[in-house]
Amino acid sequence: MITTANVKNGVNVDQLVETIGAVQQNPELAKFQFRSKNNWIDGGHCVSSIKEFYGVGQEDTTRQETFTMECDHPNVLLGNDTAATPPEVVLHALGSCLTGAMVYHAAANGITIEGAESSLKGDIDLHGFLGLDPEVRTGFDGITFTLKVKSDATAEQLENLAKFSPVFDMITNPTPVKIEIVKQ
Amino acid sequence: MITTANVKNGVNVDQLVETIGAVQQNPELAKFQFRSKNNWIDGGHCVSSIKEFYGVGQEDTTRQETFTMECDHPNVLLGNDTAATPPEVVLHALGSCLTGAMVYHAAANGITIEGAESSLKGDIDLHGFLGLDPEVRTGFDGITFTLKVKSDATAEQLENLAKFSPVFDMITNPTPVKIEIVKQ
Repeated sequence: MITTANVKNGVNVDQLVETIGAVQQNPELAKFQFRSKNNWIDGGHCVSSIKEFYGVGQEDTTRQETFTMECDHPNVLLGNDTAATPPEVVLHALGSCLTGAMVYHAAANGITIEGAESSLKGDIDLHGFLGLDPEVRTGFDGITFTLKVKSDATAEQLENLAKFSPVFDMITNPTPVKIEIVKQ
Repeated sequence: MITTANVKNGVNVDQLVETIGAVQQNPELAKFQFRSKNNWIDGGHCVSSIKEFYGVGQEDTTRQETFTMECDHPNVLLGNDTAATPPEVVLHALGSCLTGAMVYHAAANGITIEGAESSLKGDIDLHGFLGLDPEVRTGFDGITFTLKVKSDATAEQLENLAKFSPVFDMITNPTPVKIEIVKQ
C-alpha cells in the first residue's frame, strides 16, 4: 500500500494534526524555549549564533546547523553597512512570521495559498534614540505590512489567520525583557 | 597637519556629535523609514530582501548591497530547518540592538567598552499559536537578556545606556502594526 503525505501550502497537515493531538494529550509538549548568542564586534556591528532550543519535552537534538546572522548600521548611522540594522531585522522576522502563521493556519483549515509576497515599512524618529526628546519613543512609531496573496479565502479570513503570528503578538503587545548585566 | 578621528568603541564620536547637532538644527533629519520585502517560499519558509531606506532628509543612495535573510522552522515545527525561526530572529535583533545602543551611548559619554557578549532566552507556549487556548499569548511570555561586558562603568549605568535600544522599546511596549491584504 502506498500512502502519500497530506501536504497543503508546503505544510504536512497530517503531522500538524498529530502535533495538536499530542499537545492536547500532554500540555508540557507545547513549551518551547528559543535562544541566541550574540557577540559584539565593534560600534553597532554584532553577530548572533542560533542553534539549540528546547521543545516537545526535551532539548532538541535534530538541528545540525548553527545559523549565524549579523547586524550593522549604514554609514549615516556611523556603521560600516555590512548587514541590516536591528529594526530592519525585526521587519524581516515580522513579515516571515505573519506569512508563516497565515500559511500554517490556512493549511489546517483546508485553505490553499498559491502565492504570497509582502512589504513592510517602519517609521522611526531618532530624537528618541539620540536622547534629544524623552517624549519620542526610541522604536518604530508604527509598522505597515502589505501582503499580496493569491488564495480563494477572503482578505478578512487571511488577516485573522496571519494574526496567530508569535512575532506579531510580541510587537503589538508588551513582552517583558529582563536585563542581567554581568561585569567581567 | 594630521588629524585623527575621535573613535571610541568603534564609534566615530566626532560624527556622532555632528549628527546630534544637525538634528538639533533640523529636526526633519531624524526621520527614518526602514523597509523589508518578504517572499514566501513554502510552509514556514520565507526570504527577505533589505536595501532601501529613507533618512537624513532623503532616500538613501549609499547602501550598495541588498541584504537577504531567511526564516524557516525546525522539523518538529513542520519545517525543513534551513534557517532560524522568526522568534529566534527577534532574539538576534534584540541582542544586537541592546548591545549597539549601549556601545553608542557609552561612546557619547566617554565610557570605554572593552568587550561584550550576551545570550538571550525566550519562552513560548504553543497553546497560543495552535489556537488551543485563547488565554495563552502566541508570542514569548518573556525574554531574558544576559550581557557579559568588560567596562569601567557600573552595571546600572550600562543597563540604562542599553535601554535606548529601539528594538527593546518595540518589544517591551506596544507598536501598532497595520495589516493591508491585497488579493491577487
